[in-house]
Amino acid sequence: MAQLKRTLLGGFAPLLLSGMLAAQVTTAAVAGEHDKHAKSYAHFNKDGDLLTPRNYREWIFVGAPVTPKDMNDGNPAFPEFHNVYIDPVSFAHWKKTGKFRDGTIIVKELVSVGTKESASGNGYFQGEFLGIAATVKDSKRFADSHNNWAYFGFESYESKSGAKQPEEACNVCHKDNAAEDNVFTQHYPVLRAAKPGK
Amino acid sequence: MAQLKRTLLGGFAPLLLSGMLAAQVTTAAVAGEHDKHAKSYAHFNKDGDLLTPRNYREWIFVGAPVTPKDMNDGNPAFPEFHNVYIDPVSFAHWKKTGKFRDGTIIVKELVSVGTKESASGNGYFQGEFLGIAATVKDSKRFADSHNNWAYFGFESYESKSGAKQPEEACNVCHKDNAAEDNVFTQHYPVLRAAKPGK
Repeated sequence: MAQLKRTLLGGFAPLLLSGMLAAQVTTAAVAGEHDKHAKSYAHFNKDGDLLTPRNYREWIFVGAPVTPKDMNDGNPAFPEFHNVYIDPVSFAHWKKTGKFRDGTIIVKELVSVGTKESASGNGYFQGEFLGIAATVKDSKRFADSHNNWAYFGFESYESKSGAKQPEEACNVCHKDNAAEDNVFTQHYPVLRAAKPGK
Repeated sequence: MAQLKRTLLGGFAPLLLSGMLAAQVTTAAVAGEHDKHAKSYAHFNKDGDLLTPRNYREWIFVGAPVTPKDMNDGNPAFPEFHNVYIDPVSFAHWKKTGKFRDGTIIVKELVSVGTKESASGNGYFQGEFLGIAATVKDSKRFADSHNNWAYFGFESYESKSGAKQPEEACNVCHKDNAAEDNVFTQHYPVLRAAKPGK
């Protein structure tokens, strides 16, 4: 129950509040207000480090590329599966507007390849969690970053926070290769399908 | 807003109600009552076909095996990525008990390989959605099925419902190869990590 309660109070509280309001007043007006003022899931310490995201496995999954060791000379940039999640309030905003709102946080969790063979055939199957990275869009806090996205690394799951990476470490590659506003939507069918007008 | 509202009223309503109650009375007692009576996300028509699951991309993602065509002589049993989700109330029950409750529904969405090369390296990257399959555990409805799981196929996303597959088509393989109660938890790190005692 402790876990369930945490899920409710942490993960879905903003959605929950919005839903309760929506039952009472004009829905469109509330949606606008809601998205504008809804708190971000990204929190920072006084040094500007991003507090380690928690509970992200209950956010919205958007896609899972795999860059296996055995296809990258044993040393992929990000070993091996990348399970990618967006926070639920920013996903709701994306569905309504097709844009990533200020405060959007996207988490990439790395997972080893556990096996290459199972009952369903040959392939790549997820093994164990290896760690996370995260990116946050914020036009005020990251006014000088390309498209206002900043990228954060975390030493371990036990870390309380993670430091902002230099612009050339992450943002340059996202800028040059991501399909849409620094996000690799070309690999995330969930985001493409949820975009308005699709 | 329509989509957000649907998410709230459909996807998270049971969690939401549980959370509201939990604030008022003993949490452990509520959790027990909640899981016992919480409605299943699985709904059936009068012929016993499973109504096509909707909104499952906002459920809890558990893992994404990939069985690519090029690793299975062009013809994998399930092409190609398998994005697997469990409904959120059954996930909450799993976190509390380590068991799949009666009414659990798990959806497998198949996704093509879109490309094998991207900025992050060589590998497999998700392309387009191909279709879904689902399984439901119900000790009354599927009293004669192994571990009370039944498997359903859907002709297309437009299908209103899907038919129960013969026991030998799916259940036999799950029975023989899945790590835990017909579910391939060996490939689903999210479920393993969320199990009590981990």
